[in-house]
Amino acid sequence: MRILITGSAGFVGSHLVERFLNEGHTVIGVDNYISGQVSNTDLFREHPRFTFIEADVSHGIPYTGDKLDWVMHFASPASPPHYQQFPVETLMVGAQGTQNGLELAHAHGAGFFLASTSEVYGDPHVHPQPETYWGNVNPIGVRSCYDEAKRYAEAITMAYHRSRGVNTRIIRIFNTYGPRMRPDDGRVITNFVHQALRGEPLTVYGDGSQTRSFQYIDDLVEGISRLMMVKYHKPVNLGNSDEFTMLELVGIINEVLVSVDYVMEDYFPQDDPKKRMPNTIMALNLLNWMPSVSIREGIHLMAQQFAK
Amino acid sequence: MRILITGSAGFVGSHLVERFLNEGHTVIGVDNYISGQVSNTDLFREHPRFTFIEADVSHGIPYTGDKLDWVMHFASPASPPHYQQFPVETLMVGAQGTQNGLELAHAHGAGFFLASTSEVYGDPHVHPQPETYWGNVNPIGVRSCYDEAKRYAEAITMAYHRSRGVNTRIIRIFNTYGPRMRPDDGRVITNFVHQALRGEPLTVYGDGSQTRSFQYIDDLVEGISRLMMVKYHKPVNLGNSDEFTMLELVGIINEVLVSVDYVMEDYFPQDDPKKRMPNTIMALNLLNWMPSVSIREGIHLMAQQFAK
Repeated sequence: MRILITGSAGFVGSHLVERFLNEGHTVIGVDNYISGQVSNTDLFREHPRFTFIEADVSHGIPYTGDKLDWVMHFASPASPPHYQQFPVETLMVGAQGTQNGLELAHAHGAGFFLASTSEVYGDPHVHPQPETYWGNVNPIGVRSCYDEAKRYAEAITMAYHRSRGVNTRIIRIFNTYGPRMRPDDGRVITNFVHQALRGEPLTVYGDGSQTRSFQYIDDLVEGISRLMMVKYHKPVNLGNSDEFTMLELVGIINEVLVSVDYVMEDYFPQDDPKKRMPNTIMALNLLNWMPSVSIREGIHLMAQQFAK
Repeated sequence: MRILITGSAGFVGSHLVERFLNEGHTVIGVDNYISGQVSNTDLFREHPRFTFIEADVSHGIPYTGDKLDWVMHFASPASPPHYQQFPVETLMVGAQGTQNGLELAHAHGAGFFLASTSEVYGDPHVHPQPETYWGNVNPIGVRSCYDEAKRYAEAITMAYHRSRGVNTRIIRIFNTYGPRMRPDDGRVITNFVHQALRGEPLTVYGDGSQTRSFQYIDDLVEGISRLMMVKYHKPVNLGNSDEFTMLELVGIINEVLVSVDYVMEDYFPQDDPKKRMPNTIMALNLLNWMPSVSIREGIHLMAQQFAK
């Protein structure tokens, strides 16, 4: 297959490139490096079936090659410090970027695969969150540049599916971690692993009782690959429902990596959800998918890469 | 002042044009007639302080004239039959259209005024809805092309305010009615008034127990005018909180216009909110505003125009 991936130099995008190349597909990567990393393009630059286009997909996708089988839209700043630094760009890649991907897929008769997010559930009142939950998002909050952009991206994807017959997929990605995350990503596992490897105390925001579930990147990529093979157009959650408080995570880091202390910081980011956990029954029924990498194993794998 | 209004040929837009011209301002109207009516432009075509530009604001606002004081973004299909006929265009005018308006305002150092909607509350769990309620919207439903477009429009308006200093306003308009609504608007008051004037039975969907509140257009225009004069950047509800069930409305039509029967239809539109009513304490405190036209008076005024 010939697969175009926007955000190919990002964390998730680069793992998709690797998977598809390993499976024998031809991959066109597109990124503008607003939050992607050149090093993630360099990994594949010499590969005979990989092509890279440096472009901002919000302003168009300048692909003029052979017929595509898939357009996978994974471009977007995704961590709070990044999207809050680029609020307008984040909004645009959700709207114009998604639409440009849909138009390209439509023109090629290709499938369109949208990377949406658990952030569409906002600060949820339903726990864990099934795909049918409509969410609780502040449309005018400081996180809304990301959350509303992704909700819009889902809406326009469904509009192209319903009114123009595009063969679409939507996943809602819950917290995912693994090698090739940006060190300044700002999310808790990256922070903890880095701090631990430097022997620094781990920073816990708030009282440490807020919970998160963490999915290892290989599990996500497997779920994406399976969903491409199934004709299902509504959103599918992909995430790990093993839930940990921040303080439990501190304990796991101590157990798996190195013994470090932690410090609590009073600051609690605005509109930060207190609790989020996927209901993944849909992915189990539809794709026979469930996450297989434990948090201990995943943190170990991730630390190995950072230590290199 | 020099005021550019997108959607100037629409129902609300045309009343704004009239108000601002009457107050001595210069008005530039922009519309592509996707749901606006040429007759609404014709009303002002000969006015010396009115200019009209036929353009789709999603693709840019081709204004090259003197410095603007306000950009008022009122362009969008707004009734369910219209936006469901044009889902992609509706999404675009919320995203690209809003952004083009924000960019124009930014370039001119003008204020930007966004017409948002009570639809951002979706099918609310809080009743009546204050501006602080985050809403309950289905991101992938058939109405999401409108609801999510408007939520996105609010998010990008706040992003331009926060990160680029644009002097923004946001109103959330609840059901509004009055002269110059399209006869095929599809919303209940238009339907009822037309059916009554033709002596046909009124069509009630579902069991008629769902409630709506109805604001007369002159009240909305007064609220808009007052908000322009106040520096307040978060959303403000403008609506009438007098609540009526569909069956009560049937009774009012019978009382004010003409005695007609009604028929109940089983069909209940997908994701149609069962209940919606504004909390307008913010508008009262901020603008000393409250609606002053009663439903009986408003229906009478509207029927006079239709009868012409």
